[in-house]
Amino acid sequence: MKKRIGQYLMDCISAVGVDKVFGVPGDFNLTFLDDIISRDDMDWVGNTNELNASYAADGYARLKGISAMVTTFGVGELSAVNGIAGAYAERVPVIQITGAPTRAVEKAGKYVHHSLGEGNFDDYRKMYEPITTTQAYLTPENAQSEIPRVIEAALTEKRPVHIHLPIDVASVEIEVDQPFEVPQHQGMDVAKYMNMIKEKLQSADKPVIITGHEINSFDLHEKLEQFVNQTQIPVAQLSLGKGSFNEENPYYMGIYDGSLAEEDIRNYVDQSDAILNIGAKLTDSATAGYSYQFDIDDVVMINHRHFKMNETKDMEVSLIDLLDGLNTINYVNDATFPQFQRPKENQYDLNGDPLSQATYFKMMQDFIKQDDVILAEQGTSFFGAYDLALYSDNKFIGQPLWGSIGYTLPATLGTQMANTQRRNLLLIGDGSLQLTVQEMSSMIRAQIKPIIFVINNDGYTVERKIHGENASYNDIKMWDYKLLPTVFGGKDEVIVHDVTTSETLQNTFLEIEAQPDMMHLVEVKMAVHDAPHKLNAIGQAFAKQNG
Amino acid sequence: MKKRIGQYLMDCISAVGVDKVFGVPGDFNLTFLDDIISRDDMDWVGNTNELNASYAADGYARLKGISAMVTTFGVGELSAVNGIAGAYAERVPVIQITGAPTRAVEKAGKYVHHSLGEGNFDDYRKMYEPITTTQAYLTPENAQSEIPRVIEAALTEKRPVHIHLPIDVASVEIEVDQPFEVPQHQGMDVAKYMNMIKEKLQSADKPVIITGHEINSFDLHEKLEQFVNQTQIPVAQLSLGKGSFNEENPYYMGIYDGSLAEEDIRNYVDQSDAILNIGAKLTDSATAGYSYQFDIDDVVMINHRHFKMNETKDMEVSLIDLLDGLNTINYVNDATFPQFQRPKENQYDLNGDPLSQATYFKMMQDFIKQDDVILAEQGTSFFGAYDLALYSDNKFIGQPLWGSIGYTLPATLGTQMANTQRRNLLLIGDGSLQLTVQEMSSMIRAQIKPIIFVINNDGYTVERKIHGENASYNDIKMWDYKLLPTVFGGKDEVIVHDVTTSETLQNTFLEIEAQPDMMHLVEVKMAVHDAPHKLNAIGQAFAKQNG
Repeated sequence: MKKRIGQYLMDCISAVGVDKVFGVPGDFNLTFLDDIISRDDMDWVGNTNELNASYAADGYARLKGISAMVTTFGVGELSAVNGIAGAYAERVPVIQITGAPTRAVEKAGKYVHHSLGEGNFDDYRKMYEPITTTQAYLTPENAQSEIPRVIEAALTEKRPVHIHLPIDVASVEIEVDQPFEVPQHQGMDVAKYMNMIKEKLQSADKPVIITGHEINSFDLHEKLEQFVNQTQIPVAQLSLGKGSFNEENPYYMGIYDGSLAEEDIRNYVDQSDAILNIGAKLTDSATAGYSYQFDIDDVVMINHRHFKMNETKDMEVSLIDLLDGLNTINYVNDATFPQFQRPKENQYDLNGDPLSQATYFKMMQDFIKQDDVILAEQGTSFFGAYDLALYSDNKFIGQPLWGSIGYTLPATLGTQMANTQRRNLLLIGDGSLQLTVQEMSSMIRAQIKPIIFVINNDGYTVERKIHGENASYNDIKMWDYKLLPTVFGGKDEVIVHDVTTSETLQNTFLEIEAQPDMMHLVEVKMAVHDAPHKLNAIGQAFAKQNG
Repeated sequence: MKKRIGQYLMDCISAVGVDKVFGVPGDFNLTFLDDIISRDDMDWVGNTNELNASYAADGYARLKGISAMVTTFGVGELSAVNGIAGAYAERVPVIQITGAPTRAVEKAGKYVHHSLGEGNFDDYRKMYEPITTTQAYLTPENAQSEIPRVIEAALTEKRPVHIHLPIDVASVEIEVDQPFEVPQHQGMDVAKYMNMIKEKLQSADKPVIITGHEINSFDLHEKLEQFVNQTQIPVAQLSLGKGSFNEENPYYMGIYDGSLAEEDIRNYVDQSDAILNIGAKLTDSATAGYSYQFDIDDVVMINHRHFKMNETKDMEVSLIDLLDGLNTINYVNDATFPQFQRPKENQYDLNGDPLSQATYFKMMQDFIKQDDVILAEQGTSFFGAYDLALYSDNKFIGQPLWGSIGYTLPATLGTQMANTQRRNLLLIGDGSLQLTVQEMSSMIRAQIKPIIFVINNDGYTVERKIHGENASYNDIKMWDYKLLPTVFGGKDEVIVHDVTTSETLQNTFLEIEAQPDMMHLVEVKMAVHDAPHKLNAIGQAFAKQNG
C-alpha cells in the first residue's frame, strides 16, 4: 500500500496509542502537519512555545506511556531541549520530530534561515545525542526500518528519541509492505541474580524495599505489588517516583527521604540488613542530600540496565525481566515494621487567620479524590505534596531529579489531554508559573478543566531556603494572577478563586466540587517565608552541598 | 590583591562595558549572584525564564557590544540554547555563565538534581560547543587565564561563549596580579587582497557594494562609510543587517532582496560587474530564496574569517583588517546609479476604514525619529519594517537569519536596558508575542518605557503565507492583549491603545508623543490575510524551497 512517509510515521505513532501531538508550526514542518490534522485518530495540540510543548508531551507520556511532538528546525528543536532532557533524566518516552530543510538544501549547504548560516546541518542533531536514547535521520530508503527502530527504542528504554525529518522526505510515497506492530518485550534469564537475592533475604532480619520512578516509567506497579504481597517485605518510597507503590497496601511504610523521614521509617530503613532498591534512584533531592545512614554498597540495585549486588553487575538487563524474576523468589518475610499511618481527616481549624503552608497541605489531603491526577511543581508545592497520602488510583507527577521550574503547568496540559475525564490538580507557585504561564491559554483553547492552585508568596521560595533569603534576585514581579484567564480568552470558561485563610480555602473546595465541569484557578496567598518543613530542611542540605 | 573568582569574573565583565547582567537564579548560582548584586557598577536583571534572558542579553549586546547572563546548571542553561544559537548565527557576543555543582560533587559522579542522573557532568557543555565560539571550565588555577581568553574570543569573533562555573570555584579567593585589560586588535596585512580588489574595480563598469549584519556586529559603520565616500561606489543593503549602512548617505541605493527589490536597484545589482559583498550573507530570507541573478562565484566575499575572490581564499582574516584595507584603495567610481528615494511624508489617508498593513507601515515611517531603536519581529513586522527608511542615528534590530519567533520582546528589554534614554519601538505580532509574553513583566519591573505595537491578526501570518493559509495549526487563541500590563502589575505604568483604523493610529501616535515618559502598548487590529507585499512573495519562495 502506498503511503507518504509523513502518513506512515503517524500510522506508527498512532499504533503505540498516541492520539494527540504537541508542538508549534514552522515552515519546515507545515506540510507534515497536514498529515496529522487530516487523521481522524489524531489531534494536533498547538502550544504557545516549544519548551511548553516538550513539557506537555512529557506529561501526556506519563499518563499514556508515550507521546509525540513536532517542532521546526533549529529555533524550535533547540527551544525544546530542556524539556526533552528532563524526559531523558526521568525516563519518559517522547518522540521529538523536527521538520527540517530539504535534502537538496542540506546537500548544497545553503545559508538557510534557522541554520547557523555556515552550511552545517548536523549541529542540532548532535546536541540531541546526550538527551535522547537514539536518533534517526529519515530518508525514503530507511523510513520503514528507522521509524520502527526509534519507536521501539523509546518504548524499551522509556526515554525520548529524536527524528530529523527533511520536509521533502515527509511527502515521498513509499510502498508499505507491513503495518507497524508494537514490539513485544524479549525476556532474558535472570535466575542467577534471583538466587543471590533470595539468599540475602533468607539471612536477613529486616529486609526492605526502596522503590521509585522507574516503576512509573515502565508501568510495573502490578508486578511490584505482587512481589510485595507474596514476600511481605515492607516498602518505602522515594519522593522521586511517588506513586510507584500503592500507598493503600498494608506493606507500605511511607516516604523515605533520608534524615527527613519519620523516625520509625528512617530507623527501619537505615538499619535494614537487606535493602532492595527497585527502580529507585537515590538522588540528592530524594534523600535530603544523601543523608541515608545505610551502606550504599550493600544495597541491591535493581534498576533498568543496572543490576548490582556486591561485586556482581549487569548493565544490560531490563527492569521488566528483573521484576519478573523477583516474582519467582520463594520467600516470606516475618519481621515487623512500622506501618504507614494515613492522616486522619479534618486535622486543622477553619478560621480567618492567614493560611499557613502546613494547613494548606493538610486541607489538600482531604480534598484529594481516588482517581485524581496530582501534579506538584518542584518547589514549595512538591516538598509539601510528596507527603500527601495517595489512594491506589491516584497518579502523582513531580520532577524532582530534573527539577526544571515551570514544568508542571504545561505538563498539566499534557496529562489532562491524555484523559480529559480525570480530575487533574496542579499545585504550583508564583515564581514557577511565570516561566511557562502562556500554556494556560492552550488549556483554555483545548477546553480542558484542570484545577490550578497557585501559591502567591512573592518570589522563589525554594531558592530563599537555600541561599539569599531576602536577596533581590529571589524576588519576582507581583502579578494579578486571577486576571490570567481573562487575558487568555477564558473569562467564561475559568472560575477564579481568592484564598487567604483556611475558611476561604474550604469554601473554594466546595465551589470547585459544585462545578466540576469548569476549569478553576485558585490564587492562594501565603506568607513570604513560610514553607513546608521539609523544604526548609532540604534547602539547608542543598546549601551545604554547594559549600 | 585578593579577590573571589566570582568578583574577578565580574571585574572583567565590567571592564568590557557591561553594566547589566540577565538571568534566572538557581541554587547552583546563588552565591555567585551575591558577587553581582553587591557591585555598584552592575545591576542584576532577573528574567522570567532563561530563553527570555538569552534574548534580552542578545538585545543588550547589539547596543552595547557585549553582554552577560547567568543560568543554573542543566535546566537553565539548556533553556537558553535557542537564544545563544541565535546570537551565534547573527554574530552577537553573549557571555553565558552557568553556575554548576561543585567540583567535589562532579568528581564523585553524584546523582544530583539538574543532572541526567547518571553521574555525567559534561553533556551540557558539549551541547554548547556548536553554538559558542569557545568554552571554559573555571578552576582556581585557570581563572586568570581562561576568563580573559573567553571574553577576548567573544569580542574578537562577535559570538557567544560559555563559562562553566562550579559554584565552589566562585568563592575561592585568588591573588589577582593584574587587572583585566580590554584586548587590542592585532591587525594583519591584507595588501595583496586589496590590490586584487582595486584591479577588479578599475576594470568594472558598474561596481556595487552589498552590505549586511557583520558591519553591525563589528561596529564598522564609519570605516564602511569612509570607504564608500572615498570610492563613490553605491551601496545596497540586505535586510539581514539593516542599519549596516547610513541610509541618508548619497551613495545609498536601498534594500537588495533579490527578485523583490525595486526594479532599478535589482537591475543595477544583478548586472553589476564588480560586486563587493562586505559583511553580508546572502541567505534565503535576505534574497527571497536566492533569487539573485548575478553569478555568486564572481562576487568578492569580504566577510569575517572569509575572504574569497575567484580562486583566492582566506578563512582567517578579520573583517576589521579587511575594512582597514579597503580604505587604502585609491579608486573613484564614476558610474551613475539609482539613488535611494526617501518616501515622502503623509502618503496615506486618515479615515475610519479598517487599517491595512500597507498603511500601517507608511504611517510608521512618519512616526520614526532620528535616534529611535527599532525592533521588528521575524514575521509580518520584519517583512514590513525592513523597507522603512532609517535616519543615520537609528538602530534597527531583526533576526532574519536565525528567525526565532518571540525573540524581539525580550530583546527589547535588553536594548532598552542598554540605554534607558533612547526611544525603543517594538513591532511584533500576536503569534510571536505569545511565545515570550511574560518578559513584559520584566519591563514593567525595570521601569523602562518602550513602545510596543502588537499586530493582532489572529494567527501565524508568516506561516499562512508559506503553507496552510486556513489550516488550524496556524490559528492561535485570541487574547485580550490590552489587559497584559494589568496582569503583570503595570496598570499605572503602561498606557494601552486600541488601533483599528488609520485615524486611531494617528491619534495613538499623538498620545505617545504627548507622554514620552510612559511605556505604551498598542494593539493594532488588522485583517487575517493582509500582509506586507514582500511577505507574500517570500512565503512563496520558502514554500518552493521546501517542495
